[in-house]
Amino acid sequence: MNSNAYIRNLESQDKLKDATDPSLSPAIRIGNKLVGQDCVVIAGPCSVESREQIVGYARRLADAGVDALRGGAYKPCTFPIKARQKFGWQEGLREEGLALLAEAREASGLPIVTEVLDVRQIGLVATYADVIQVGTRNFQNYGLLDELGRIDKPVLLKRGTWGTIDEILGACERVMFGGNKKVMICLRGVVGMPSYRHVFPSIRWAPDLMMIPALRELTKIPIIYDPSHSTGYANFVAPICRAAIAAGADGLVIESHPNPGESISDADQAIGLEQLQAILADVKQLYPIGRRP
Amino acid sequence: MNSNAYIRNLESQDKLKDATDPSLSPAIRIGNKLVGQDCVVIAGPCSVESREQIVGYARRLADAGVDALRGGAYKPCTFPIKARQKFGWQEGLREEGLALLAEAREASGLPIVTEVLDVRQIGLVATYADVIQVGTRNFQNYGLLDELGRIDKPVLLKRGTWGTIDEILGACERVMFGGNKKVMICLRGVVGMPSYRHVFPSIRWAPDLMMIPALRELTKIPIIYDPSHSTGYANFVAPICRAAIAAGADGLVIESHPNPGESISDADQAIGLEQLQAILADVKQLYPIGRRP
Amino acid sequence: MNSNAYIRNLESQDKLKDATDPSLSPAIRIGNKLVGQDCVVIAGPCSVESREQIVGYARRLADAGVDALRGGAYKPCTFPIKARQKFGWQEGLREEGLALLAEAREASGLPIVTEVLDVRQIGLVATYADVIQVGTRNFQNYGLLDELGRIDKPVLLKRGTWGTIDEILGACERVMFGGNKKVMICLRGVVGMPSYRHVFPSIRWAPDLMMIPALRELTKIPIIYDPSHSTGYANFVAPICRAAIAAGADGLVIESHPNPGESISDADQAIGLEQLQAILADVKQLYPIGRRP
Amino acid sequence: MNSNAYIRNLESQDKLKDATDPSLSPAIRIGNKLVGQDCVVIAGPCSVESREQIVGYARRLADAGVDALRGGAYKPCTFPIKARQKFGWQEGLREEGLALLAEAREASGLPIVTEVLDVRQIGLVATYADVIQVGTRNFQNYGLLDELGRIDKPVLLKRGTWGTIDEILGACERVMFGGNKKVMICLRGVVGMPSYRHVFPSIRWAPDLMMIPALRELTKIPIIYDPSHSTGYANFVAPICRAAIAAGADGLVIESHPNPGESISDADQAIGLEQLQAILADVKQLYPIGRRP
Repeated sequence: MNSNAYIRNLESQDKLKDATDPSLSPAIRIGNKLVGQDCVVIAGPCSVESREQIVGYARRLADAGVDALRGGAYKPCTFPIKARQKFGWQEGLREEGLALLAEAREASGLPIVTEVLDVRQIGLVATYADVIQVGTRNFQNYGLLDELGRIDKPVLLKRGTWGTIDEILGACERVMFGGNKKVMICLRGVVGMPSYRHVFPSIRWAPDLMMIPALRELTKIPIIYDPSHSTGYANFVAPICRAAIAAGADGLVIESHPNPGESISDADQAIGLEQLQAILADVKQLYPIGRRP
Repeated sequence: MNSNAYIRNLESQDKLKDATDPSLSPAIRIGNKLVGQDCVVIAGPCSVESREQIVGYARRLADAGVDALRGGAYKPCTFPIKARQKFGWQEGLREEGLALLAEAREASGLPIVTEVLDVRQIGLVATYADVIQVGTRNFQNYGLLDELGRIDKPVLLKRGTWGTIDEILGACERVMFGGNKKVMICLRGVVGMPSYRHVFPSIRWAPDLMMIPALRELTKIPIIYDPSHSTGYANFVAPICRAAIAAGADGLVIESHPNPGESISDADQAIGLEQLQAILADVKQLYPIGRRP
Repeated sequence: MNSNAYIRNLESQDKLKDATDPSLSPAIRIGNKLVGQDCVVIAGPCSVESREQIVGYARRLADAGVDALRGGAYKPCTFPIKARQKFGWQEGLREEGLALLAEAREASGLPIVTEVLDVRQIGLVATYADVIQVGTRNFQNYGLLDELGRIDKPVLLKRGTWGTIDEILGACERVMFGGNKKVMICLRGVVGMPSYRHVFPSIRWAPDLMMIPALRELTKIPIIYDPSHSTGYANFVAPICRAAIAAGADGLVIESHPNPGESISDADQAIGLEQLQAILADVKQLYPIGRRP
Repeated sequence: MNSNAYIRNLESQDKLKDATDPSLSPAIRIGNKLVGQDCVVIAGPCSVESREQIVGYARRLADAGVDALRGGAYKPCTFPIKARQKFGWQEGLREEGLALLAEAREASGLPIVTEVLDVRQIGLVATYADVIQVGTRNFQNYGLLDELGRIDKPVLLKRGTWGTIDEILGACERVMFGGNKKVMICLRGVVGMPSYRHVFPSIRWAPDLMMIPALRELTKIPIIYDPSHSTGYANFVAPICRAAIAAGADGLVIESHPNPGESISDADQAIGLEQLQAILADVKQLYPIGRRP
């Protein structure tokens, strides 16, 4: 069965309608860029930490040529006590963080990409965000996906670390079937060979760049690549950014922090502004090559 | 770092308190069995399909010696349209299904284990269920886990197909930290080697039986093993049930259907009553051997 | 395609003839046991270290009821200099080790299972060994497999950590096609989820117990399970031995050392005599249960 | 432990000396290119099939700008009978194939890269080949690696589908420790998530592009990337070639056949001359970008 037969098979079983119908994927605009026609780079810190951090850094990111600001107001942690006791917050600055992101947008002109963790927060997050991100842990949180199908904001749907092609398309379909066709897939590292962690301790996943051409054969939904959660290690972010754009990705979402070593979360994988500027220069050159068949 | 050092390290960082403190794991009773002292077998169909199916089969399961009835009233599907168009239902019989499970309990005497999919359904599901299951897709749905920490019902927390030891313990901790200490881990198949599917097409995951002794070294939380979602293939359910109990699991949760071939979902992995009876006889013999160090 | 269709398909393409033809699998006798009718337990140290170690321990293993002695005279190491500089030997005692194994057989009555690493050593190893083992690294060393097809000794063919069902059957076929039908498959840990090593540092592979019933559907070739190279950690050897026999394995090959902590290689996974005796008692009870369908 | 600590640790244990010592990696010249300074592209059919095929195609590859010709004279097959019965040959044209490769070199000016399968063939293969390839199955065939350490030809050492960083460095060290420092690592697909095969049936492995920057941190040994055995599918070869060079690989080895659909082996992943020419143009532009830090 080649990929066309696979899609025909899914469609004939009424499993997929929207995710594989190119006529339904609407133009999505992020800042001054049209996704699919221009390379889109979203960058920013893992967590919104303070006004000074996020508003100041947003201005510098805008100057560097970034297209949108990412930052987490709701931050899920694997170990719940740690977040609550160590940081003195409720797993993120929450609504205060959303308000700071809005200030950062005001100051920088950059649209805001931020994550919603819970179906009960959609209304609030949608008030502040320009693009709503669904995080890895909620890749198959169907209540959340169903409700995001009923709003009119672009959704950046992050692949679960376990997500197969079926599950990626199925998750997109779930949002689109609800009515919201503005879906983008965010690829990130997946469960892979246990090859790296004993050498590079912050590496817990494997980048899966083959998913870029694989999805290209099946769907027109835009593909944004996350090198930070693919590698877990700042030194590898630039080469994996270059690889993703060269393989045909439509854009990148990169963790970048004004002082990576002081980042309250994901410090090992965050890059500084200088490294980010070099990546922006690289991908500008690479994007037209990555478009080739 | 051996496992003790690992736990001490997590505890000293205030990452874990409850999940690794054996004094906090309360006795959990399922039907006539005390989990951890007796082998617990939970069985039933993937989906609640009709009164005839679930009530009739519950009686036969009780006669066979099963300890609790499982059955899904809310059924998540990878492809959303399929469920909605093909079956004419909203991904499960929903509240009607819960009411049928309550009838089945009445008729059979078996306690009910059923899944909650969405934080907004907890109140309703808790009205009907004796044990609330969190499914694989919601293994890290933190809004759901936080709320389950505030109720007083045992929670059967299914491992995500990607879940590491950290993530399993962290998910348990999240429920327990909220106050509800009655947590059981449900192990199932995980992302593994792509070795099987081209030969046995319904096999999509790999059983991970080593997690049983691994968790035993770290926590006293009970371990229930799901052979059906470990193998995906009815022929392999019996050997994997035997392996799990021999390796030290506290119990099993098995998909069993009055007519497996006609099951509306998971037909390839469902077993019939006769096979289930053979497994019950096997595990009765195996359970004391599996308790050995 | 179910497993029968898979086999028919392979056979009709002239890919497999011998490995799936049950009439060709001859009776293989190991000591007093007939493989497939009695549970066979092979045990011994990773490396032959000295006369005192191997001859003395062979006697104690025989007294404990073990069926054959394993021990490596040729020891492949991932890092070549280490073996050569640290131990002052050429990656094993080599012919001297083979001669010590023969002495141990003489003293204990146990048949010898030992590994051949190189096609040029087959003649020599076959002079001493009762069963010739092919190690993981040579699972697809076709020159070696071809030559082993031309001798008349049982071959214990260890699965590569990457080996699919096709590759396992293909490797068996290669030996059998050469004329030697006395092939046994040795299952061991495979590349799996990177879930364990940061907690249990000696764990580098994942046991794959589902391969036992999977092979059972396709072939009558005996299946010997290696718990030591499945877990890498002595504490988990007993539960995985029990799981393997309960799932239907025909026997076990276990690393056991008179003083596990002093083992020159694989010290983390070697078990002592007392633990081995407990396993022997367990599997005696488990073997008939594991034979059930 | 960061990567420097990892290397220091290995070196202080006398595990590695040569593989991580940049002063020992000699200049390797392939055709007109100096590996590490210029992008090297090796291309050719999986199997040498006939004079017409290999000599004719070598000329066309040379005209296209390829740097070396690859082609298999010894062809290992997973299922041994198939090769022998279907093709009427002994798993490759063997010495006849080597002679045809020499003719192709004569006609095209391209140096020859071909695989040695067995330690007993090294002398013969070294007579004909300019670069000797060790295939995936022999990644840890230590007899073979030891002997290749004693000759004076560049060795292209293919990663096993299971090879960790330790195992890659250890295999290189084994050749280098014997005296032959002219080692190149050939990266290819590894055991990964079972995500693709049900959609793209020829895909059996996952590309692991992160290994490129990972090895870069540890060693100066050149890295050649094989997109054909990374993807298994011709449509994905071009994007993965681009990704590999953008991530910093020193060169490529690509399966290309005059009529891919008629290739006697690996037909699904072979590309034609036109596709290869497009890749050559792409990587010429990408190579300097991939060199950036």
